[in-house]
Amino acid sequence: MRLSIDVDLDYCFPAPADVLLAVEVAQLPDQVLIEDLLTVDGATGPMVPVAGEDGIGRRTWLTVEGGLRATYRAVLDVERTLAPIGTLPICPLVQLPPEAIAYLWPSRYCESDRFEAFVDRHFGDLSGGARLLAMRDWIQGEMDYAPGTSDTTTTAADAFVARQGVCRDFAHLMAAFARASGVPARLTSAYAWGLKPPDFHAVTEVWLDGGWHVLDATGLAPPEGLARIGVGRDATDIAFMTIFGSAVMNSQRVTVTRVDD
Amino acid sequence: MRLSIDVDLDYCFPAPADVLLAVEVAQLPDQVLIEDLLTVDGATGPMVPVAGEDGIGRRTWLTVEGGLRATYRAVLDVERTLAPIGTLPICPLVQLPPEAIAYLWPSRYCESDRFEAFVDRHFGDLSGGARLLAMRDWIQGEMDYAPGTSDTTTTAADAFVARQGVCRDFAHLMAAFARASGVPARLTSAYAWGLKPPDFHAVTEVWLDGGWHVLDATGLAPPEGLARIGVGRDATDIAFMTIFGSAVMNSQRVTVTRVDD
Amino acid sequence: MRLSIDVDLDYCFPAPADVLLAVEVAQLPDQVLIEDLLTVDGATGPMVPVAGEDGIGRRTWLTVEGGLRATYRAVLDVERTLAPIGTLPICPLVQLPPEAIAYLWPSRYCESDRFEAFVDRHFGDLSGGARLLAMRDWIQGEMDYAPGTSDTTTTAADAFVARQGVCRDFAHLMAAFARASGVPARLTSAYAWGLKPPDFHAVTEVWLDGGWHVLDATGLAPPEGLARIGVGRDATDIAFMTIFGSAVMNSQRVTVTRVDD
Amino acid sequence: MRLSIDVDLDYCFPAPADVLLAVEVAQLPDQVLIEDLLTVDGATGPMVPVAGEDGIGRRTWLTVEGGLRATYRAVLDVERTLAPIGTLPICPLVQLPPEAIAYLWPSRYCESDRFEAFVDRHFGDLSGGARLLAMRDWIQGEMDYAPGTSDTTTTAADAFVARQGVCRDFAHLMAAFARASGVPARLTSAYAWGLKPPDFHAVTEVWLDGGWHVLDATGLAPPEGLARIGVGRDATDIAFMTIFGSAVMNSQRVTVTRVDD
Repeated sequence: MRLSIDVDLDYCFPAPADVLLAVEVAQLPDQVLIEDLLTVDGATGPMVPVAGEDGIGRRTWLTVEGGLRATYRAVLDVERTLAPIGTLPICPLVQLPPEAIAYLWPSRYCESDRFEAFVDRHFGDLSGGARLLAMRDWIQGEMDYAPGTSDTTTTAADAFVARQGVCRDFAHLMAAFARASGVPARLTSAYAWGLKPPDFHAVTEVWLDGGWHVLDATGLAPPEGLARIGVGRDATDIAFMTIFGSAVMNSQRVTVTRVDD
Repeated sequence: MRLSIDVDLDYCFPAPADVLLAVEVAQLPDQVLIEDLLTVDGATGPMVPVAGEDGIGRRTWLTVEGGLRATYRAVLDVERTLAPIGTLPICPLVQLPPEAIAYLWPSRYCESDRFEAFVDRHFGDLSGGARLLAMRDWIQGEMDYAPGTSDTTTTAADAFVARQGVCRDFAHLMAAFARASGVPARLTSAYAWGLKPPDFHAVTEVWLDGGWHVLDATGLAPPEGLARIGVGRDATDIAFMTIFGSAVMNSQRVTVTRVDD
Repeated sequence: MRLSIDVDLDYCFPAPADVLLAVEVAQLPDQVLIEDLLTVDGATGPMVPVAGEDGIGRRTWLTVEGGLRATYRAVLDVERTLAPIGTLPICPLVQLPPEAIAYLWPSRYCESDRFEAFVDRHFGDLSGGARLLAMRDWIQGEMDYAPGTSDTTTTAADAFVARQGVCRDFAHLMAAFARASGVPARLTSAYAWGLKPPDFHAVTEVWLDGGWHVLDATGLAPPEGLARIGVGRDATDIAFMTIFGSAVMNSQRVTVTRVDD
Repeated sequence: MRLSIDVDLDYCFPAPADVLLAVEVAQLPDQVLIEDLLTVDGATGPMVPVAGEDGIGRRTWLTVEGGLRATYRAVLDVERTLAPIGTLPICPLVQLPPEAIAYLWPSRYCESDRFEAFVDRHFGDLSGGARLLAMRDWIQGEMDYAPGTSDTTTTAADAFVARQGVCRDFAHLMAAFARASGVPARLTSAYAWGLKPPDFHAVTEVWLDGGWHVLDATGLAPPEGLARIGVGRDATDIAFMTIFGSAVMNSQRVTVTRVDD
């Protein structure tokens, strides 16, 4: 499907600050950019592009002071064949490539080492991708999607106790469950067609059968309409804007439109 | 039933230290002491008795250096009519007496405020004591009793994530669930007839129908054979020995024998 | 000095809730109430008074739904002779009365067990109350009073790392340092003459020479103008309003005026 | 200098387990391997080499059950010109290459976002590498090297509060301070000539003047005698042995000898 992405960010920086923007859609085999343009008004220096984590996607360094207005427009074709995840095998650990190994480890927001007994008890009888689907379904069934109940310090274990959170928390918990079960998992930021209200979205990718496969534990948007931005170990790596300094948000708007209907 | 309690503690203190011992059985209506004797060998000052938390039971201050050998012997009659907890009403908050209110609050090891959504979702349809019994049954069903998997820093939320622990963790989780549901709950240390292997035990007391009622979320010992020592908000309050300094344990032995068979 | 206290609380409760208000000035030897009146508009049941923690002061249970308007007016004489804290002896542990022992323990927001090495290294050479004053001075020198940098989940250790917080955090850190050093310490809520902007205040009381003595680690208000409300192990115990349910604050105002000038 | 490394690991695995060994010295410009050999006795499958994090060094996957005996022998020349760190400039954020950016972020054991106010207050007046040296000196001055006081769950903030720990904790704190100050920092495992008692060592590398520079906040071994194994965000990435399953250590020995004297 062809998607049009529109993003408008309007922020104010009371003092000079460096900002790392990660809003650009990654050029990937299953999501082909037709055109995109990042426009920044208010930067006090040049825009400096820098590759995303794992070499996926692109980020942009800015130096700012005072008002910052950033707009991003993209048109892309998403042509994604969803694999039958339930039937995919889990890779033996000893066959994992180096780029997947780092995603086995517990991380700040995905304390997978704390979930081993739970995961073994609840999902240990399932094998292959079916185990991952059962984890996703458990999260959808047991967690309430409740904006305002978590913040940027909330970990997967916190969300597991609280039984509520937002996409970030659902994605962290999914990644923690997968890693606790010996399956590499990473966080992915994305634009999501069909997400209501529209916003930056976070999903999980799990390593099955030698490749990454998206699982959206929120179930709030169809995976065939995701336009991925970047990946990382957890939310820290994939923030759409990292501010070295302080800022006030005036407004922020994300729009994802299907344009081939 | 008539119980005989024998405790032997053999510790070594490399430097002068103060010690608060809480090993003496509390004199209470449902557990009547026939005789008891605490003997300490190695103290460098007088033994100073001090009331337990909430005025329940008795503790003893010691000053020690070098070897400490403490023995405690008691004989008591436990005559406890177990209330039909499932049928008891939960007290309205506004009728709680001051001594119960402190046991409503979250505490260090019972972070009840973090469990509100979980408790509401899983037990919210049940009323009265039946809700508390369902919590106890959930803990027995979902937690593994596994010595060595937790330590003195483990909280109820930690244990809830890990799904394993010892009596202390089970009691903390039970108290956290109860408080999250508006029911005062406290931790109680006890000698437990039938506990294998014998050791100091920790259980939970919940405030129902105007009084405290024991719930042992481990299910490892019959409540009619408990000889309570002291109570408190969580494990910190009810430690059988609090050491202000450092110590090495040489040996420690607890024996609980029924003597009226 | 004679103080006049005026409090206005205007809240909205979208659903029925129980509320524990702790805003009434405690009647104590060093603060003598001339008159006080708590008025509540919007309660759906009777106001139920209940003693404060440790029998100090008074709290009031309310049942509410919809708007709640509570006003509290008091006039009192504060006649407090401030002890020369720096010269007071620290009580030997074995002489502590039962009511002080609970304030030796680490609590949720005052993790004193984690500060032992720091306290020993920085304050271990000082004895008696001078050690406590040095702790207070360290906190005043190293911490920034910065509203908005902490929240209700912030512990003393969190504040110690962040080096910023509000009165609650300063009081927690003072209590944690004291307890880590073998001195019982409790949190105290108070109205504070001279505090700018006026608000509910939190200070620390330490047990020296057989009694409680106020230390205000913020240094923002003179101790001779404090009108204490209640005490407890940490912020949980002394919240001016504990809500069992959810609420929206419309407005809240505290005024403390000296009326004998 | 020429170093000879000898490692002997003797473990027992009661059930089948996967193990990732990271004990091999990395081939790098400043440490040239003359020879090395990893020998494993007791593996139940082939040894599978896999690159280290960031492409530095090499790790080895093993599948094991029962006894495992691993020995590693290496001879290498360390020819390291130590840069005058105090004079090196800190790179502007916008010029950081992608491989350094991930080391700016807070991580599980280096919660740099929590240290910003402290770092600004204590080191904010210093610029360039002198700021990093001051951080290292602060850690050496304020922290006690005390084996047994921390464990694998201890974070930089925990160690900062406790004021004690081992090399892992010192390295985490150094990395957290650096990142809090806008300087990328990573953890590095190494063999350390002169370390007493000999053991696997952990140090910090900071990104200054376009390259990585070692800082050993413990001061326990000279940087010119370090033989680096691997790098990562924190201790999780650089563990010398990661066990997917359970194991018992029988014995473990590390020897580092200078052989060109």
